[in-house]
Amino acid sequence: MNSPTVAKSRRLRSTIYSSRIEKQGLKSYTVYNHMLLPAGFSDSLEESYYHLKEHVQVWDVAAERQIQITGKDASELIQLMTPRNLSKSIEGKCYYCPIVDDNGFLINDPVILKFNDSKWWVSIADSDLLLFAKGLAIGKNFDVNISEPNVNIMAVQGPKSFSLMSRVFGKEILDLKFYNFKYYDFNGSSYLVARSGWSKQGGFEIYVEDDDAGLKLYDEFFKIGDEFKVKPGCPHLIERIESGLLSYGNDIDLNDNPFECGFDKFVDLDNEFNFLGKEKLKKIKQNGISKKLMGAIIDIKEIQMTGSLSLFFDNKVIGELRSAVYSPTFDKVIGIAMIDKPYFKVDQEFEINLIDKSNKNIHKGKICELPFV
Amino acid sequence: MNSPTVAKSRRLRSTIYSSRIEKQGLKSYTVYNHMLLPAGFSDSLEESYYHLKEHVQVWDVAAERQIQITGKDASELIQLMTPRNLSKSIEGKCYYCPIVDDNGFLINDPVILKFNDSKWWVSIADSDLLLFAKGLAIGKNFDVNISEPNVNIMAVQGPKSFSLMSRVFGKEILDLKFYNFKYYDFNGSSYLVARSGWSKQGGFEIYVEDDDAGLKLYDEFFKIGDEFKVKPGCPHLIERIESGLLSYGNDIDLNDNPFECGFDKFVDLDNEFNFLGKEKLKKIKQNGISKKLMGAIIDIKEIQMTGSLSLFFDNKVIGELRSAVYSPTFDKVIGIAMIDKPYFKVDQEFEINLIDKSNKNIHKGKICELPFV
Repeated sequence: MNSPTVAKSRRLRSTIYSSRIEKQGLKSYTVYNHMLLPAGFSDSLEESYYHLKEHVQVWDVAAERQIQITGKDASELIQLMTPRNLSKSIEGKCYYCPIVDDNGFLINDPVILKFNDSKWWVSIADSDLLLFAKGLAIGKNFDVNISEPNVNIMAVQGPKSFSLMSRVFGKEILDLKFYNFKYYDFNGSSYLVARSGWSKQGGFEIYVEDDDAGLKLYDEFFKIGDEFKVKPGCPHLIERIESGLLSYGNDIDLNDNPFECGFDKFVDLDNEFNFLGKEKLKKIKQNGISKKLMGAIIDIKEIQMTGSLSLFFDNKVIGELRSAVYSPTFDKVIGIAMIDKPYFKVDQEFEINLIDKSNKNIHKGKICELPFV
Repeated sequence: MNSPTVAKSRRLRSTIYSSRIEKQGLKSYTVYNHMLLPAGFSDSLEESYYHLKEHVQVWDVAAERQIQITGKDASELIQLMTPRNLSKSIEGKCYYCPIVDDNGFLINDPVILKFNDSKWWVSIADSDLLLFAKGLAIGKNFDVNISEPNVNIMAVQGPKSFSLMSRVFGKEILDLKFYNFKYYDFNGSSYLVARSGWSKQGGFEIYVEDDDAGLKLYDEFFKIGDEFKVKPGCPHLIERIESGLLSYGNDIDLNDNPFECGFDKFVDLDNEFNFLGKEKLKKIKQNGISKKLMGAIIDIKEIQMTGSLSLFFDNKVIGELRSAVYSPTFDKVIGIAMIDKPYFKVDQEFEINLIDKSNKNIHKGKICELPFV
């Protein structure tokens, strides 16, 4: 059976980089925030994994859309949506923030950029946070403007990203601290650059606000990048699972709370500020969680995930595998699983039913901490 | 260049029917409400077009997700989100409702099912209306429950859908009126059936609440359907454009208001009830609209849409084409376009730049009313 192709349309928005990456060997797309997000190139998954860990890649991650919130009540709205204490937040910094509803369930897990008290960008995971913010602001009668600006992020990831970026923007880019952002110039245009990215291999995200300037920069990276072995890439399944980078919609959904997802340090229940679900989260913390995201290692060499897979112990379901991939580092399949109480402990054994090439089979695995590396 | 494939994951949810349609010749998917929606089978687009207009198709449209709103304030919340007057709405009926924000812009265009004053289902187009409803309900302190139940719609569309459905559910299904819904039994299970669907060829949508019962029914259609020439299918680009069925995200987006999209009859500004954007919409009605969705006919035989395409008159942009396809009925490309004032009139001529197989070329077209047939 052939793999189904993506039926393109205006609704699955192409990005400003799509025509370029398609010429550069793009093989598969996913869809993220109603936009095409590259998911694989002509290199094998393992080739690109080693490449990302050794060299540098440029990623079209325009699908990480920005929700811009401006106005007098912008800070109040932002704080209302997250249990992370932003009262001492600083201009020019990025904040990873779980977003929760009134029941303490997770709606999104964006990185939030603070420009100033009346201007924020929320760099969202795959759910229409704009609509939640709009509904909330309307209901609360907040004085805010909420919009999706034309921002198309290009990520530069991998250990050689520092050399490549400083060649383009100058040495001062190396002074940019982790999760800080600032404007830098290249060839007459100004670019918002953040020291961030959805890998643990180091790098930057460039929040491109001008299409032409973005394409000029994209082309420059490939024009000068040969000596750094630059390649096009995309968020990498093996690397992100090994690194324990969670994916909203895959590992987390609207039925999970921040404590179940290991976000304890982003939940401040002790201070005065108000946010949605605060009382619910206090109760959850008091009573303890009933399930938890953990790592899973399975004694097999390949897996295809198209949905959750149940994990068993003593013929009882003890949780579900949500993401998984073969890891060359472990020479096994590793994954992220939501495990029920009391089984969410290191070295807990489990079984999984997987239809492999020959026939249905039961395979063994073990629970571990996240991240894997 | 190969067409990019879909990278499957838990986040792009498969439906209960996915494994069946993939065995039945599925060729391409789109993604809709974070779920896989079939977009093409092994038949050509034209073959399936004629088939849909002559026979009967079963569609996996589980991606039309339901937002269930229950509770004391359910009706108030529903009415707040739409300018359509639901004060005289009737239990067991479906209502096509534009959903607008406080500025009168369109957020979604669902079909809303009224069970009773404290239970509604909103059968959504492709945006997270659940998050908007949640935000609004939290902000307004409404007493409601908002959830996405496990409902996986199967549509039965085409002129022979009536024969096929009555063979399964009995003759009484033929008494079900357009945009009404009711429960019907088959083989020990009960199914919510609506006389509706995203084609103008007649048919039903079955709101499957029990996975096993849904699959049993799906298989039954293909078991007994030979005499009706039943085939798997999906919302059909040619048929839906000819019929003027609008697609949120393609033809409509968050920058459009209901008057621009021809939804005048679903906007009630004269009655007392309250809804978001009412004052804004009154002003828009008073001042008149500055752009309008119209039909477009272009003198070419094929087109591939991956985003908006500008339409020109006298070297000036007068609008954008948002959806388009070759229509065998017209033997031309037809499409849906947002046209600026004062050009949104029948027979307005335009030019479009399309890179065809040989070289870049300017093609001529004309504006017309919707629907085409």
